Amino acid sequence: MSDPTRIEADYLIETAAEPAAAAEAMAGEQSSGTFVAVPGETPELKARAAARVEALEVVGTVDAPSLPGAVAPKAGGGWQRARVTLSWPLDNIGPSLPNLVATVAGNLFELRAFSGLRLLDLRLPTAFADRYAGPKFGVAGTRRLAGVEGRPLIGTIVKPSVGLSSAATAELVGTLADAGIDFVKDDELQSDGPSCPFEARVEAVMRVVERAADRHGRKCMVAFNLTGDIDEMRRRHDFVFAKGGTCIMASLNAVGFAGIVELARHTALPLHAHRNGWGALSRAPALGWSFPAWSKLWRLAGCDHMHVNGLANKFSESDDSVIVSARSLGDSLFEASPMRAMPVFSSGQTVRQVAGTWAALGSPDLIYAAGGGIVAHPHGVAAGVTALREAWDAAMAGIPIETHAQTRPALAAALGAYKA
Amino acid sequence: MSDPTRIEADYLIETAAEPAAAAEAMAGEQSSGTFVAVPGETPELKARAAARVEALEVVGTVDAPSLPGAVAPKAGGGWQRARVTLSWPLDNIGPSLPNLVATVAGNLFELRAFSGLRLLDLRLPTAFADRYAGPKFGVAGTRRLAGVEGRPLIGTIVKPSVGLSSAATAELVGTLADAGIDFVKDDELQSDGPSCPFEARVEAVMRVVERAADRHGRKCMVAFNLTGDIDEMRRRHDFVFAKGGTCIMASLNAVGFAGIVELARHTALPLHAHRNGWGALSRAPALGWSFPAWSKLWRLAGCDHMHVNGLANKFSESDDSVIVSARSLGDSLFEASPMRAMPVFSSGQTVRQVAGTWAALGSPDLIYAAGGGIVAHPHGVAAGVTALREAWDAAMAGIPIETHAQTRPALAAALGAYKA
Repeated sequence: MSDPTRIEADYLIETAAEPAAAAEAMAGEQSSGTFVAVPGETPELKARAAARVEALEVVGTVDAPSLPGAVAPKAGGGWQRARVTLSWPLDNIGPSLPNLVATVAGNLFELRAFSGLRLLDLRLPTAFADRYAGPKFGVAGTRRLAGVEGRPLIGTIVKPSVGLSSAATAELVGTLADAGIDFVKDDELQSDGPSCPFEARVEAVMRVVERAADRHGRKCMVAFNLTGDIDEMRRRHDFVFAKGGTCIMASLNAVGFAGIVELARHTALPLHAHRNGWGALSRAPALGWSFPAWSKLWRLAGCDHMHVNGLANKFSESDDSVIVSARSLGDSLFEASPMRAMPVFSSGQTVRQVAGTWAALGSPDLIYAAGGGIVAHPHGVAAGVTALREAWDAAMAGIPIETHAQTRPALAAALGAYKA
Repeated sequence: MSDPTRIEADYLIETAAEPAAAAEAMAGEQSSGTFVAVPGETPELKARAAARVEALEVVGTVDAPSLPGAVAPKAGGGWQRARVTLSWPLDNIGPSLPNLVATVAGNLFELRAFSGLRLLDLRLPTAFADRYAGPKFGVAGTRRLAGVEGRPLIGTIVKPSVGLSSAATAELVGTLADAGIDFVKDDELQSDGPSCPFEARVEAVMRVVERAADRHGRKCMVAFNLTGDIDEMRRRHDFVFAKGGTCIMASLNAVGFAGIVELARHTALPLHAHRNGWGALSRAPALGWSFPAWSKLWRLAGCDHMHVNGLANKFSESDDSVIVSARSLGDSLFEASPMRAMPVFSSGQTVRQVAGTWAALGSPDLIYAAGGGIVAHPHGVAAGVTALREAWDAAMAGIPIETHAQTRPALAAALGAYKA
């Protein structure tokens, strides 16, 4: 961050106009500009409040516009892509997260000058760190509560996503906790459905979790999905805390920035952030948000764990994108307050993606969540957990997984069941 | 709504697979499905909790996938588009707005089976109307507070967007209020910036608004942008109310669903909903959200006024899309509780778009907001307001605007200044 009093944002733009002129228009639209000159728009005001184009680099051209509704090129012209950095004076909005969103990701995506516009990254003045505390737990706090050091937390998701009663959920979690799993999360489709009420589920699940903790000497971390209205989320958090639970989960796009800020201020437990709906914001390559920019705002808001998908996932995201996302959670938001979040790998994960994940990330500070990759293990759930742990042991020791499996039946069976 | 116990959502899908099979996979992903069969996934559970494909109609084929990362067609195959209706048992989530979002717009957009997926519309069981009150004011309440009947509210936006002090903002609003304007809104970039603090702005603005109200016998409605953290928004609402203000404004995408629900429950004033950032969710035609689906959720949450852009706007949206959006706000959400919101037309609006807006909408129940279209009128702001009122009088009486302008200098000057 060159200037501690300015907010900076990087964008990919695509335009049929001169990119520099289009970038200036974009800066105007998101600060002091109007489409007709108005009386109050003085040079002094512009000097104080205008957004600035800090950098611009043309990165390529395309034959057709990525998005509809844009101004067409002049005869013979085409569409150019550029990487642009804009900056705003902090004093336009003050260190307010919701107003930051309206400023860096507001009425921009619709602009007719652009046939593509995507927010790539963000840099914020430290005033934001004074106002928002970021993750209260992060990696260290999560490890402390889960009792796991030096390796990833092996996790799973309660499946089927919906349809299990509280008792059936507890039975499943009990089996997993007995099997030595580190982390379990509710599905994002299950919060407080009448067929599986939140409090009944927490009560039933924590009973089996505490029983397993007594045996194992460490407590399996369960992320209870408390997604709901503000008062419900506060009340549900308090209930989880009172019952000895160690994690809460919320759906970011369903709750929104102001709600997550409120929940993060209130929580005494790590906040496991689910990104369902993220595809709508990101899947069109020339539109919306990149994960590094988007997740920085949620880290600032206070999210401890962020979903990043996984290698060879069942969704449409590429492995490169997954790794860029996961790494970005380790970037410092502020020098004195890095606000790092713990990446959560999931979606079709088995023992097969462990070596690649370790090779790409080079850190064990993550949650590795498998659904079918654990519960569909041919020898049962306990063998499923064991196999994943063994796969991580092998990867971190630099031992080929097949070699490691030779003397380890759970891992060998997993390699047989989950094909590359 | 055929079945009062099920949630229904319509989607546009694009897929290289058999559309019916892809729709079934989509229903599975958003309910009881897993990518590997798991022990708890019984037929009874599926019967209780599974989403159902209610309807499917193939609507066309495309030569290339709209989005990257999708499964490719088999040799010789292509991509088909279909309109699909899914339904879910209400008991999966109960009548919870945030959990509804995670269900109908969660982990769907990323699915590899689809090269396009867009949420088109929604129908909800009445249990949602028992839980969420919808708009507290709507058209009737807004008209009552603004003292305007039988014609649109003529509105404007404080411009420049940022950079004006509280005193300068009040001076501008004073001029507008003296000119007889019905409605003024803050820019979405200005909430509580250190250069224009919220409370100082409200205080200064309401002083001039009350003075003008004393003269005119009706109070100009000012939508104060209180976007911020939850506690700030509540406090700012109370401040506006205490100072005699009659409207609050918030940026939907910056605050989020849970925050807007909380604010809407708290408010004693109409909630003016700004949709900045909407382009990221909607501009890729085969991805994200359509406005009718999206705005229904915000109406349920309690938004009284919703931005819909305007005809011949400065953004990339087509006129057809603007009119579909505006009309959809008048659709009943529930038979006994329609929860209609008031459309706000804006973006490059002048006297030129009035006749077309009236012809397309056939209702005066709207806010017609012009920025430059008022303040850049050659005879000044008062003439700018007068010209817009005269343009609406003409349109609603079926008189060509040029004819009406022959004896009306303000309208004549506007036609000269703002070219078709």
